Amino acid sequence: MSLEETIRNACRESMTGTRMGDTERELAEIRDCIRNAGAIIVPNRTGEKVSAINVVLDEFGLVQATHLQVRTDCCDITRMPALTKALMALDTVACDLVIARGRLGVPGSGSMLVILDRKGRILSAALSPPHILHGKSIADAVQDEMRAALGRVGLEAVR
Amino acid sequence: MSLEETIRNACRESMTGTRMGDTERELAEIRDCIRNAGAIIVPNRTGEKVSAINVVLDEFGLVQATHLQVRTDCCDITRMPALTKALMALDTVACDLVIARGRLGVPGSGSMLVILDRKGRILSAALSPPHILHGKSIADAVQDEMRAALGRVGLEAVR
Repeated sequence: MSLEETIRNACRESMTGTRMGDTERELAEIRDCIRNAGAIIVPNRTGEKVSAINVVLDEFGLVQATHLQVRTDCCDITRMPALTKALMALDTVACDLVIARGRLGVPGSGSMLVILDRKGRILSAALSPPHILHGKSIADAVQDEMRAALGRVGLEAVR
Repeated sequence: MSLEETIRNACRESMTGTRMGDTERELAEIRDCIRNAGAIIVPNRTGEKVSAINVVLDEFGLVQATHLQVRTDCCDITRMPALTKALMALDTVACDLVIARGRLGVPGSGSMLVILDRKGRILSAALSPPHILHGKSIADAVQDEMRAALGRVGLEAVR
């Protein structure tokens, strides 16, 4: 099946009131989509978060992400900064996946790392509390989020 | 300060390139917004998740949520089912907060519990992997998400 087919089937289930939750087949489709990505983009002003994400992509045997070097302050004035940042990258660069990390919602709401596919569909995500609460380094926080985002759809580290 | 003021200040910081991350003041504002909520709505078809959310609201000394009993299948055909469910409730019922729990993104992407304020701004959220991966009961999964969503903005259980 393709991701389009699993989404079409899930829509049909929702529309007929027969949806019973996520299936193993749907999870496998998300994993394939991530594993088969040839071009992964990470939008950010500096390379620090990209390096942290690449450490984890390597652990999971996935291709390295490319840094889209842009100022992302403009995304922070929107309601969902991390998602806006991801969509901004998706709409401006050819890629199979976008991984963006930014604020979840209002100032103070902590961070979100989100993985979008080539159509902007949300495949997975992970959240962290604000830095002033967890106190981790940026690199550690981003790596933990990246592992959580991949792990929660059933992907496993290979090294 | 009000939430509007902290958001306005954060916008100004982002627009002038001086934003340094979430502040204690912003977190305090989010906590006040949650603590001062007099009417909390949880949209759902059945009462099971509402009961689970109310267990945690009680632990944190917050007011009990009211069940908005609606079919939410229609939300599942959107790109962000949990967020759509929350906005649907916000737009149809008078309330100070909405707490909604549903799918994060595409089928297979697991669940999101999201807390919106009276204007639909995202105050906090929490994620879980798909049920077939974590195997918890719905009540346990929702309670864990609710504790995570409150804890990540610095709220603590009082009993």
